[in-house]
Amino acid sequence: MEIACIGNELLIGKIVNTNAAWLSKRATSMGIAVKRITVGPDDIVVMANIFREILARKPKFLIITGGLGPTFDDKTLAGIAEALNYRLAINEVALKMVKEKYMKYLNRRGIPEGEMTPARVKMATLPECAKPLPNPIGSAPGVLVDWESTLLFSLPGVPKEMEAIFNESVAPMLRQASGDLQFYELSIFTDAIMESALAPLIDRVMQDFPRVYIKSHPNCRKNQPHMELHLSSSGKPSENLQELLAKASVQLAGLIETAGGKVIKAESQTMV
Amino acid sequence: MEIACIGNELLIGKIVNTNAAWLSKRATSMGIAVKRITVGPDDIVVMANIFREILARKPKFLIITGGLGPTFDDKTLAGIAEALNYRLAINEVALKMVKEKYMKYLNRRGIPEGEMTPARVKMATLPECAKPLPNPIGSAPGVLVDWESTLLFSLPGVPKEMEAIFNESVAPMLRQASGDLQFYELSIFTDAIMESALAPLIDRVMQDFPRVYIKSHPNCRKNQPHMELHLSSSGKPSENLQELLAKASVQLAGLIETAGGKVIKAESQTMV
Repeated sequence: MEIACIGNELLIGKIVNTNAAWLSKRATSMGIAVKRITVGPDDIVVMANIFREILARKPKFLIITGGLGPTFDDKTLAGIAEALNYRLAINEVALKMVKEKYMKYLNRRGIPEGEMTPARVKMATLPECAKPLPNPIGSAPGVLVDWESTLLFSLPGVPKEMEAIFNESVAPMLRQASGDLQFYELSIFTDAIMESALAPLIDRVMQDFPRVYIKSHPNCRKNQPHMELHLSSSGKPSENLQELLAKASVQLAGLIETAGGKVIKAESQTMV
Repeated sequence: MEIACIGNELLIGKIVNTNAAWLSKRATSMGIAVKRITVGPDDIVVMANIFREILARKPKFLIITGGLGPTFDDKTLAGIAEALNYRLAINEVALKMVKEKYMKYLNRRGIPEGEMTPARVKMATLPECAKPLPNPIGSAPGVLVDWESTLLFSLPGVPKEMEAIFNESVAPMLRQASGDLQFYELSIFTDAIMESALAPLIDRVMQDFPRVYIKSHPNCRKNQPHMELHLSSSGKPSENLQELLAKASVQLAGLIETAGGKVIKAESQTMV
């Protein structure tokens, strides 16, 4: 899977890209590996290039966030159309979705705000190859395009809307594709040992447990190095990977203590 | 400028990419536009591809974060060497920097921990074309490569170390390159008007003020749309852009109120 997040606000550092982290966590938990995340601007030509480059790498899934709203700078659908060489056209199903949203609001005269202004019609103007996905929270529908070897999902940038469409429409399709793969993880925490002294110990455990990936995350507190060691693995429930992680963490903890480090906390629920 | 953040922890959603936001904000404040942010894995071949693709776009600056530490999965220097077709070699200046760091720590027998283990030498093993940048906080030096039209900076992933090297070594070079360009911004907040109704008003103000970029950020509270309108511009101090932003925001606020919306708060310090 690849993720593309569109929005100038990300490129000026106005907001932190929590959408990418949320999506990565959800995909990873289903055993789907996120290979790359790209952040690009509200610019049709630039984002079309980004989308084309991603599609050329043939990921099974591409999730795009941002740029589906009603304002002039919401250009993602135009960017997708440009990348795939499709025209934009009013999608009747999407138009109905958008119209229904605005029927819920009353205007100042107490009449339902059903009026389809150009800005509202814009949210229902999709690449001709696209299918709208219902937005349970906001106005702009999500969009699905089945493109060669890639399922492309375009979701709003507002986190709650993105998450709602993901949960309702995207997650079931990802789960189906990933089969029963799952992601397993376990962390142990160490003190009084430096990352450079840990490095050969991590190497050794990873050699003994080739299915286990271990990454150290330093967290400097004063002059005492405090480290999280994150062990993870991906596979089927039948492979007993939780047990494997627990065994690897026990070996690693032992090696650390022998080297003079302290293992100060272990996540007990998965430790043997 | 482009930014590349390396680390599997970003791709599994274990951590949120605050480094990219911090760097984007700092670069933007100096009038330097961040064009793209790419997040990639701890994999030499994949990251070398990412670096090559970025360099082919010839950004003036490329800032890379992550993967400079002592463990096996800190592979960024190897990735840079691979991308630029340079060999890795021990850099004597970097070696001295790393050694001095470890002289500060005492081992269990009370002797300075100056021993240069392979894991520590690794942090001083740079692409042959690289120059180390002092790390005022941690052990791994930053790295600078002057590559064709791009200045490439490689910084650690630990935020405090990344920020310290940026402030000490990177920021002065960026400031010099950007001249006296600055970024100006101003936000106004509205209520009781929907984004789709705001869209044509934003369009009109942007037509009247072509130097001003306006982006709406919806923040749904119950059923009352609450919106931030972010006005920004980049230029020289002599161009009076702050005054321009203030004028544009006054026009926008007026249009919103005429359309029945409320302007509930304005950042007073830059409003006229």
